Amino acid sequence: MATTISRDKVFFAFSPTNQPVAHMKLGDIVTLETHDCFEGQIQTKNDLVTNLDWNHVNPATGPVYIEGTKPGDVLRVELIDIEVGAQASMVAMPGEGALGGIIKEMETTILKIEGDELVFKDKIRVPKRPMIGVIGVAPFEGSVANGTPGMHGGNMDCTLISQGNRVYFTVGVEGALFGAGDLHAAMGDGEIVVCGAETAGRVRFKPQIVDIPELPTPFVETPEVVATIFSAPEVGAATQGAIDRMAEFLTKFVKIPLNDAGMLMSLVGQLKFCQVVDPLKTVRFEFPKSVLQQYGFEMPA
Amino acid sequence: MATTISRDKVFFAFSPTNQPVAHMKLGDIVTLETHDCFEGQIQTKNDLVTNLDWNHVNPATGPVYIEGTKPGDVLRVELIDIEVGAQASMVAMPGEGALGGIIKEMETTILKIEGDELVFKDKIRVPKRPMIGVIGVAPFEGSVANGTPGMHGGNMDCTLISQGNRVYFTVGVEGALFGAGDLHAAMGDGEIVVCGAETAGRVRFKPQIVDIPELPTPFVETPEVVATIFSAPEVGAATQGAIDRMAEFLTKFVKIPLNDAGMLMSLVGQLKFCQVVDPLKTVRFEFPKSVLQQYGFEMPA
Repeated sequence: MATTISRDKVFFAFSPTNQPVAHMKLGDIVTLETHDCFEGQIQTKNDLVTNLDWNHVNPATGPVYIEGTKPGDVLRVELIDIEVGAQASMVAMPGEGALGGIIKEMETTILKIEGDELVFKDKIRVPKRPMIGVIGVAPFEGSVANGTPGMHGGNMDCTLISQGNRVYFTVGVEGALFGAGDLHAAMGDGEIVVCGAETAGRVRFKPQIVDIPELPTPFVETPEVVATIFSAPEVGAATQGAIDRMAEFLTKFVKIPLNDAGMLMSLVGQLKFCQVVDPLKTVRFEFPKSVLQQYGFEMPA
Repeated sequence: MATTISRDKVFFAFSPTNQPVAHMKLGDIVTLETHDCFEGQIQTKNDLVTNLDWNHVNPATGPVYIEGTKPGDVLRVELIDIEVGAQASMVAMPGEGALGGIIKEMETTILKIEGDELVFKDKIRVPKRPMIGVIGVAPFEGSVANGTPGMHGGNMDCTLISQGNRVYFTVGVEGALFGAGDLHAAMGDGEIVVCGAETAGRVRFKPQIVDIPELPTPFVETPEVVATIFSAPEVGAATQGAIDRMAEFLTKFVKIPLNDAGMLMSLVGQLKFCQVVDPLKTVRFEFPKSVLQQYGFEMPA
């Protein structure tokens, strides 16, 4: 039974046909060592994206075969700890991201990570807020490149996927074939230039099967909120998907009448961007657990 | 010089040809009494939207002629205090809003406002967070119905437009012809069923002209962030507009090089929804003032 999985064990697409690099049991705690999204190819400001080997981008560590999981199970992954490295990189790229039309010069910059802060261009200090960009399970069928988000998870770039929170996936194949990578030492909602503070790191996680069948996954739980996540080619469709799935959760699982669910979503629900720069755009809808509790509903312990 | 403007003095479209109902000076503090978005037509759960007089929806109190303002001036409106009434209403409407395709029954519900909480359906308690739905100045030309947001402000439904914050507009006509209404005792980002907790109330505000010419307005300042706001027929275009205008602000006003501005927007900027249900959709981009300060930039005092 592995307790740490090396960052040399990577895959580049979530697929039912991937061979597992390790096995683990439900309830065990395992650490994934992860590469940054460039698989370590960018170490200095002289390492430009133009020189990248694009066959080695967005590695996820794994896949891990989680014993006792089968298609249709709802897998909850508790993120016990996320550690990031001593430095992170960011890039600006003409033609890429939400400002690609006006950015003219390719650039790489290296951020130092000092305690709870990142240092940008040796002078601007911002808070460290580690999160996971790519996380998921093999889909039921087909192969999804790690750079793309979807129903299986993948490159959701959701800032809620951070230490102490729980991410829910629907298992697609026996063993789930779970993996994660693409850590960010910090990232803002939107991911405007297609990167956060890209860094290598370590993710300590605990998987469980939870008895909440047909939960609309991907789904996230924090101490304060639950959230549905949806990805689609256009922001508008991603928005509608995240809204529809929260309405489904509130009506089918929490048993709130539809009109009340809609009005409460309008009153205290928060529609939020994850990212608007990947091959599919990702939107989430957050709803406060304090209201679920007033309806007598708790997520599984 | 008026110090309180009655809620009987309303208009339903921002327009250069509106006749002012009051005059005030820059730096003076004035209170607008506001109707709710239904102009008080909904008082009980039996008052359904189907029976509304739609010629009396989205009233804004005003317009107020602010002496000393001329086209092109950047007008800063400081929101000193926002009070809401003792009750609020919400409605569910088939065919309207982001869940209009599945909502089948027209409904009105009345929320009690008790201290710092709203009470929904006599049992669910949520925090009171007053904000202004409709606020703006007359556009340079043309008339914009109060239900529609735009470059002049209007129905932006932005949750940052709340007590203690500052909203910036570009003056379109002499006197600005400022007005506000459509208060919400609480609303979540997105405004899923096209309403927050709709309530009458009072807004105490202080207008100033600030020397920051060609600021991309509408623009909001809170103690923590500055934000650009952009509205467009589709969410995707609203998103791009809010992003482009923050890039413009950071490069032209704060003098951050474009690549750095883009990377910092990706690192610590927050792309957020205002609403996705009005005739135009509204998105904002928030950026932390702590980073502006590290570049030696402060908004005008």
